[in-house]
Amino acid sequence: MDFGSDNMAGASDKVLAAITAANAGPADAYGGDALTARVREQLAALFEHEVAAFLVATGTAANALALAALTPPWGSVLAHEEAHVAFDECGAPEFFTGGAKIVAIPGEGGKLTPAAVAAALDSQPPRPPHTAVPAVLSLSQATEAGTAYTPAEVAALAAEARRRGMAVHMDGARFASALLRLGASPAEMTWKAGVDVISLGATKNGCLAAEAVVVFDPERAATLPLRIKRAGHLVSKSRFLAAQFAAWLDRDHWRDLAARANGAADRLAGELQARGIRLAFPLQANELFAVLPLARFEALRAAGIDLRRWPTRSLAPAACGAGEVVTRLITSFATSDDDINRLLAGIDRVG
Amino acid sequence: MDFGSDNMAGASDKVLAAITAANAGPADAYGGDALTARVREQLAALFEHEVAAFLVATGTAANALALAALTPPWGSVLAHEEAHVAFDECGAPEFFTGGAKIVAIPGEGGKLTPAAVAAALDSQPPRPPHTAVPAVLSLSQATEAGTAYTPAEVAALAAEARRRGMAVHMDGARFASALLRLGASPAEMTWKAGVDVISLGATKNGCLAAEAVVVFDPERAATLPLRIKRAGHLVSKSRFLAAQFAAWLDRDHWRDLAARANGAADRLAGELQARGIRLAFPLQANELFAVLPLARFEALRAAGIDLRRWPTRSLAPAACGAGEVVTRLITSFATSDDDINRLLAGIDRVG
Amino acid sequence: MDFGSDNMAGASDKVLAAITAANAGPADAYGGDALTARVREQLAALFEHEVAAFLVATGTAANALALAALTPPWGSVLAHEEAHVAFDECGAPEFFTGGAKIVAIPGEGGKLTPAAVAAALDSQPPRPPHTAVPAVLSLSQATEAGTAYTPAEVAALAAEARRRGMAVHMDGARFASALLRLGASPAEMTWKAGVDVISLGATKNGCLAAEAVVVFDPERAATLPLRIKRAGHLVSKSRFLAAQFAAWLDRDHWRDLAARANGAADRLAGELQARGIRLAFPLQANELFAVLPLARFEALRAAGIDLRRWPTRSLAPAACGAGEVVTRLITSFATSDDDINRLLAGIDRVG
Amino acid sequence: MDFGSDNMAGASDKVLAAITAANAGPADAYGGDALTARVREQLAALFEHEVAAFLVATGTAANALALAALTPPWGSVLAHEEAHVAFDECGAPEFFTGGAKIVAIPGEGGKLTPAAVAAALDSQPPRPPHTAVPAVLSLSQATEAGTAYTPAEVAALAAEARRRGMAVHMDGARFASALLRLGASPAEMTWKAGVDVISLGATKNGCLAAEAVVVFDPERAATLPLRIKRAGHLVSKSRFLAAQFAAWLDRDHWRDLAARANGAADRLAGELQARGIRLAFPLQANELFAVLPLARFEALRAAGIDLRRWPTRSLAPAACGAGEVVTRLITSFATSDDDINRLLAGIDRVG
Repeated sequence: MDFGSDNMAGASDKVLAAITAANAGPADAYGGDALTARVREQLAALFEHEVAAFLVATGTAANALALAALTPPWGSVLAHEEAHVAFDECGAPEFFTGGAKIVAIPGEGGKLTPAAVAAALDSQPPRPPHTAVPAVLSLSQATEAGTAYTPAEVAALAAEARRRGMAVHMDGARFASALLRLGASPAEMTWKAGVDVISLGATKNGCLAAEAVVVFDPERAATLPLRIKRAGHLVSKSRFLAAQFAAWLDRDHWRDLAARANGAADRLAGELQARGIRLAFPLQANELFAVLPLARFEALRAAGIDLRRWPTRSLAPAACGAGEVVTRLITSFATSDDDINRLLAGIDRVG
Repeated sequence: MDFGSDNMAGASDKVLAAITAANAGPADAYGGDALTARVREQLAALFEHEVAAFLVATGTAANALALAALTPPWGSVLAHEEAHVAFDECGAPEFFTGGAKIVAIPGEGGKLTPAAVAAALDSQPPRPPHTAVPAVLSLSQATEAGTAYTPAEVAALAAEARRRGMAVHMDGARFASALLRLGASPAEMTWKAGVDVISLGATKNGCLAAEAVVVFDPERAATLPLRIKRAGHLVSKSRFLAAQFAAWLDRDHWRDLAARANGAADRLAGELQARGIRLAFPLQANELFAVLPLARFEALRAAGIDLRRWPTRSLAPAACGAGEVVTRLITSFATSDDDINRLLAGIDRVG
Repeated sequence: MDFGSDNMAGASDKVLAAITAANAGPADAYGGDALTARVREQLAALFEHEVAAFLVATGTAANALALAALTPPWGSVLAHEEAHVAFDECGAPEFFTGGAKIVAIPGEGGKLTPAAVAAALDSQPPRPPHTAVPAVLSLSQATEAGTAYTPAEVAALAAEARRRGMAVHMDGARFASALLRLGASPAEMTWKAGVDVISLGATKNGCLAAEAVVVFDPERAATLPLRIKRAGHLVSKSRFLAAQFAAWLDRDHWRDLAARANGAADRLAGELQARGIRLAFPLQANELFAVLPLARFEALRAAGIDLRRWPTRSLAPAACGAGEVVTRLITSFATSDDDINRLLAGIDRVG
Repeated sequence: MDFGSDNMAGASDKVLAAITAANAGPADAYGGDALTARVREQLAALFEHEVAAFLVATGTAANALALAALTPPWGSVLAHEEAHVAFDECGAPEFFTGGAKIVAIPGEGGKLTPAAVAAALDSQPPRPPHTAVPAVLSLSQATEAGTAYTPAEVAALAAEARRRGMAVHMDGARFASALLRLGASPAEMTWKAGVDVISLGATKNGCLAAEAVVVFDPERAATLPLRIKRAGHLVSKSRFLAAQFAAWLDRDHWRDLAARANGAADRLAGELQARGIRLAFPLQANELFAVLPLARFEALRAAGIDLRRWPTRSLAPAACGAGEVVTRLITSFATSDDDINRLLAGIDRVG
């Protein structure tokens, strides 16, 4: 079973070919190469905005660097309690920021609301220097529940943050999948809605290891070259990182890849629902959270289908009853009809 | 009005006199003096246990150092969401620990329960290295709501922590007041109940600036001398810090001081209740949280009585109705009957 | 023997009395008290300049906070290799700055020169982001060799720093003693010569525990309140810290105290030289570095005189011959003629 | 001109092919893949020793992680003043270690000696907690001057370190080139000589971005998985990192690549010397430091040959006269005879 993570897929052929093509001849190191320059232009075009962009190998690095550019060590970063930056990065944001405080906020379906942000800050109002200074609101797009914020929702959250002097970060590890669902442009989903910095993920969507920290206000990017080197994230043979991005961005390849992942998710969701298996959250990217009676879940596992219980605090009260469990299924650009058919056949065998 | 904080009081005469007495002649610096050695013995006697003890000037330093001794940078510290270490120290725990994650847990009356701790960890189970490693449970005694844990409650919480491989810290900024209420011994309230390290506060209870990090297992203290120096908390003329503690511990002076603070709180609580003003939380130390109709609160303030609205998430649903507000009143060893009478007179004038 | 450190002395009577006087009645905490406000005014008057001033309990904290206000984590701090900030603070500057690089520069007599600073930077020119960004030049006044920079020397060093975009910090743990020797005003020795921030030490010169971070450009001080709280250096009952400083600054008490320490050093130096014991460095503050044949040094120690070998890299080649050792003797405001006589009698007995 | 850095070369065909081959089908992420397991076995075989091995994308990360595994925040790391860890990583070691102190030691030809290590520690003996605790000796193999330590030299340095309770790290960014020159086995050059951890560099020697932290005592590796995740260096699609290493280690491919780089360096050195250009340091890896009269250097540059002055403190007094400059030339596995011929033709044209 290959639905455990979109990190289990390899890279797209086009991305791989670009790496091979980039190998010819010498190239300046540490970002001085022509491909890196080209990617900067591509990103500016993609976002229809001047950008400072930095390429790194992991999403955790991209997120932690982005947050470090936006908060002092005594700042706080507000994020959904299930957000990667809050829970899944082993304290990388704390490490990169020099010890900022990550404030975990609950919210249904993995999403924050302006009201939840306001409540978090108003029920215990900050009193610096005794408390941390609210500095960043971080939004995951798509969320850890596979849901997505509309541009209007991002804008409302960003306005709430802005009103309180906070910057806005978007963790876009699955940005492409969310974007396609919403039919919004990259610009509408980011700076036009008030996002200051996005961690733009390409790894889960067809690259080997390629993420970009994209900063819309160059002033906010001033410390990043130093932070990146200091964190060991300045790759020497930078052309290979850039080559992935260049191919991924070229002629909307990223869109094609995300469309494949989303299409596979759609088909899988339909087939599951046809078999009486409902979803815990609306399908707004490439992640499905299937609700199953515990007995059926155990029977499927006993039959060799690699399903894992997915703990989530994000469930609406009615979403998952007593005696039911949630399991997460992720599709990727590489998910084939055969992959889905095999899973469904397994489910059908067990009944 | 002097009920805003127990930090507004000065020091007790005995403590002050001890400082003056300590001034005679030369003394070794950096903790090599005789008074510091004596305090270590006094603390061992107080707790009926071998201890490693370190004297510092602030409670924030004591807490942050204690936590840093108990968690690696990738550890998490579970604490009540209103705990000083979680909210009121501007990220000092994050700073001293090298970026550990503070997990803020809600709970009525400022208190954690084993069930709340279990829920926090089980609803999103840790998966190192992707997530932080649960490392410390930190309990405030008394809590930020002026309540106190019984030794049995501490023991149950510590057992839950221990079962998950976590150490237990107690923030004892108002330890003396809580202890007297409960009639427990220092040993019963700490190591006998499973506490590994206590930040023992003397400043709020009659000293100028004197807090102790008391470690019951000397092995856990091994890094503290280095952490303390590195944090600028190794005072050179250590005799003056030790002199405060020595006097405070001598012949139960700390008990006398806490009894005075608690007695003043008792009298004030009775008088308020006699005037129809109820308390939001049980009075279990020297802090009162008075519930007032907003109109009366505003009238009192208009009359020049320095009351401040106290935001608290710890309230039981019924504790504070719509149209009511909570204000915090703290007594100290220095609170006189006159102070209380003046406050009551003001209240009576306004009605 | 009491010449091991000026931290072995207690506090002056006037300073002690001020603490007792400050105890009457309630006072706002955390620097909101009237005494703290008064000290700020006194410091502005002392330095004849607008200042932002922050009172802390230790010199290590003052230095590390000052440096943290002046350098980002990727900056470098140039200091003499024997400077406290480079060698004697267990990495406090690294800790407070978030990991800045301390560049240790050699120099005779504990002193840096513009040429040495230039050589350190030019022999391996910085290439950010690959290398740290030179951010601060830190000067110890007096130095660890008991020497002092003249205002002209400070100005030349500060000009070299400024030319390279670096700020200038002065570690003034023994500022008063140096200042009196040089007959300069506090202003001439600091901001008029190009110093941005001084750690002004009062502890070694008659206080219990009182140091000030004095910042001449308030903009550079913006982060300090947060850094101070976060480092556990915001004392709650701040009046007692301020009381020490207020008394110390009042009517040039600090001058009287430093004059006593310097006078004792002068007398001791004269007596030693009369006994054929020469000094390794010019006496420019209150520290003497006596050069002794090893045999005589050992004989004195055998006779119970507590002399310690003082390792120093700062010696001019001719200052200490083979078979000779250096020992450090420090006087303080509390050093009496009797103290000196006892030491001399011991020396005379041994011969 | 392509002699500026071995980072300007691409990857070897075999390494590239391995990446493409690794792309087939799904694979577990985060190091759970089969290729990563295989590389661990290959490394154990290479070093003839049980190892814990961690693959990361940059040499700076490998070095900083290795040091962080070996020193507490209050430790010191002794390294040559020109070592990458001391000078060229923008404070990454300070960042990863939580602020350890890097002690920069001078030494001819980029090399440390036991006597220099001893002098650094004995001229200012550590006195914890006032000073940092000497924790690690870091050796660069090859050095920044293109020289190499013999196994006996490593052993003598490691013995000096061990005697003082310090661990030994080797920065092996150009380990392969040095090893081939010395005819030693990887085991002889590392753990047999007392090295605890090596940062084994493959990027400069034919990979895209692949470095390994190899730890010979698994206990010392215990914190690394957490440090790696926390620093954003746990790549999700780990198979692609492992594929590079697997190919590089397979059938001594690394040796072939290093032999090509060294052979090119040999030829270039011979040709330069034939033209009256001498080397500042012995050629013991793949870096040449050519000494040129300033006029000739300027003439060559004017003729379009991209030579850069190389500042170095490592020169023996006689190595570079007044009016002479040093320029660095690096060869790689990809350096062709044509590349060398073009450079020589340029030199010959200018004369």
